[in-house]
Amino acid sequence: MSSIGIVVPQSMQFAEPLALQSGAAIAGYSLVYETYGTLNAARSNAVLVLHALNASHHVAGVYSDTDKSAGWWDNMVGPGKPLDTDRFFVIGVNNLGSCFGSTGPMHVDPATGRPYGASFPVVTVEDWVQAQARLADALGIVQFAAVMGGSLGGMQAMAWSTLYPERLRHCVVIASTPRLSTQNIAFNDVARQAILTDPDYHGGDFYAHGVVPKNGLRVARMVGHITYLSNDDMAEKFGRALRSGAYQFGYGIDFEIESYLRYQGDKFSEYFDANTYLLITKALDYFDPARAFDGDLTRAMAGTQAQFLVVSFSTDWRFAPARSREIVQALVNNRRRVTYAEIDAPHGHDAFLLDDARYMDTVRAYYRRVWRDITDLPTASAAPRHEVAA
Amino acid sequence: MSSIGIVVPQSMQFAEPLALQSGAAIAGYSLVYETYGTLNAARSNAVLVLHALNASHHVAGVYSDTDKSAGWWDNMVGPGKPLDTDRFFVIGVNNLGSCFGSTGPMHVDPATGRPYGASFPVVTVEDWVQAQARLADALGIVQFAAVMGGSLGGMQAMAWSTLYPERLRHCVVIASTPRLSTQNIAFNDVARQAILTDPDYHGGDFYAHGVVPKNGLRVARMVGHITYLSNDDMAEKFGRALRSGAYQFGYGIDFEIESYLRYQGDKFSEYFDANTYLLITKALDYFDPARAFDGDLTRAMAGTQAQFLVVSFSTDWRFAPARSREIVQALVNNRRRVTYAEIDAPHGHDAFLLDDARYMDTVRAYYRRVWRDITDLPTASAAPRHEVAA
Repeated sequence: MSSIGIVVPQSMQFAEPLALQSGAAIAGYSLVYETYGTLNAARSNAVLVLHALNASHHVAGVYSDTDKSAGWWDNMVGPGKPLDTDRFFVIGVNNLGSCFGSTGPMHVDPATGRPYGASFPVVTVEDWVQAQARLADALGIVQFAAVMGGSLGGMQAMAWSTLYPERLRHCVVIASTPRLSTQNIAFNDVARQAILTDPDYHGGDFYAHGVVPKNGLRVARMVGHITYLSNDDMAEKFGRALRSGAYQFGYGIDFEIESYLRYQGDKFSEYFDANTYLLITKALDYFDPARAFDGDLTRAMAGTQAQFLVVSFSTDWRFAPARSREIVQALVNNRRRVTYAEIDAPHGHDAFLLDDARYMDTVRAYYRRVWRDITDLPTASAAPRHEVAA
Repeated sequence: MSSIGIVVPQSMQFAEPLALQSGAAIAGYSLVYETYGTLNAARSNAVLVLHALNASHHVAGVYSDTDKSAGWWDNMVGPGKPLDTDRFFVIGVNNLGSCFGSTGPMHVDPATGRPYGASFPVVTVEDWVQAQARLADALGIVQFAAVMGGSLGGMQAMAWSTLYPERLRHCVVIASTPRLSTQNIAFNDVARQAILTDPDYHGGDFYAHGVVPKNGLRVARMVGHITYLSNDDMAEKFGRALRSGAYQFGYGIDFEIESYLRYQGDKFSEYFDANTYLLITKALDYFDPARAFDGDLTRAMAGTQAQFLVVSFSTDWRFAPARSREIVQALVNNRRRVTYAEIDAPHGHDAFLLDDARYMDTVRAYYRRVWRDITDLPTASAAPRHEVAA
């Protein structure tokens, strides 16, 4: 197994306005994406990989020979990897509202000639899926072999299965949830309040002031990061270890965990856009496919046609296994074919990004099945077998 | 059962400097306290009640006929209540560094003539206990019938049992822990960073600027509050209920939980001092009696002489039952007499402040035992029984 190597992001411009769930619309927009592997002649081997809060279209590979950081799911996607790019044509797409290339709050609003800022419309998981579907259209992909995502990416995969049931054969939902819990929303709101009340936020127009609400972003990331790690894993990694061996009796750094979290916060505040953070947490909060069905997820999933792989991790307290089991139950109630794996992993929510043999093997085995499924398909160019025999 | 009625806080001035664990010292200081009930002639019925992060000496009763908010443990302390003031002489004391009356960061440093601000020394749980012991001396109490506290108050009760083993007959430790977990420290550091990076904090000297770091305090309180509530209780109380019945597609209030948390944060930021918040979270982080014994809590508790009541709550994820069980195990290892109750309550960490029949009955029964214990004592004035018979 090796990395896919050097990859190049592409961009596609969409001129037709996109009507959003909020009632607003985005006039014209571009989506940045990457592809790995080769689309087969039947266009049946495409897999769409969807990203979570702080990731992007850069799923796998590197940007240059000296690029030391590979894509966010480089352990999952590549030649010989669980999602094998020797077989599948994989697409990573950056979502609308992101700060990594696709049209977002940092971009100029053609209507005003100034950056959108906080006036960038609040987009939803379903809006993202609409935009992704247009990209699929443009790439000539009528049906995906699979749509796959972890965490917020898993929500998008779920939304694909209900909005475009016939456009995906398989749906892979990892470390996700059918809706945020009250506690999930509460943590998101703390993060938002940290950003919104940072004086450098300037009501979202901080670009014009030449500043960034770093303090707010930093606190937002710190609190978020705590929810990505398991209690036990944090204790195992950092414990109560002191940075200098003794209490400092001040408000600098005493504990290693403080050093780690502040570093994560600092780093994040240097590259992530505050408006994007706000917008994505809202997309998380709003996702709730059962909402239109009086909270009944079974009815919400009744229109799905895909087969599912659902994976959860034992120590994930952000989106706990019980939340994945709700998805599985709704699918079973609808007599859908669903494979469920609950991986006993110590790393909390972050486990979905990490190497774990049982996890990787589970996904690998599932994609072997996806592969058999699409290679058994009669293709447009191959004559049906019984006609050959005639 | 009725409230103890109108109570009056008192203040005691201490002229002798207090040497602190940090090596620093506080020159002179005052402690504000309240007492309920009557100290008996033998001075054997005193119970010291210690407060947690955002509470004070005002444990029970009200300040006037029109005062609508009673002390923070009014359900626990009063005539006929679990800690019965018809029997016990109860003392509530405000800790050093607080913002509710005892000497703290808001007070003028006699050395500079200006408020201490961030220069107020970082005090520890053990420092608080030293200061409390001086108050006990001044009140003529050699031995408490019990020292009792919840959460951070429980830590102080534990510290009493190791620092002054002979000065308490019973130690009541509720919803507490022998040391903060890595995750606990992490949440505290998020809160501190929110305050420290608020431009209105001014390095702790915000008093001179006529401002208060409200935004920081607000975020600190919001994140703290999430950890006080259980996931299930939050879901039960607020769920995903919307304030106006529909998504707003903005960054105002969508969900009731947001409204609740922001209200809690706003309220807190109006009355709580930022320097006090920082200081108390450090006291929490630093408490670790086993630290001087290579992490061995059994050895740390070896010098205790008190009998213990330890209470935990099933859904408390801040200081989970497992943490209380560590305390119990260390006491059992030392062959101390300990009663342990794990209350199946839905309210998370906050349960220790709430009415729950099993919880209240447990504490009530324990204090009956404390009462029998002290009333069986030979008192200085009563002649020993066998001499009467002679």
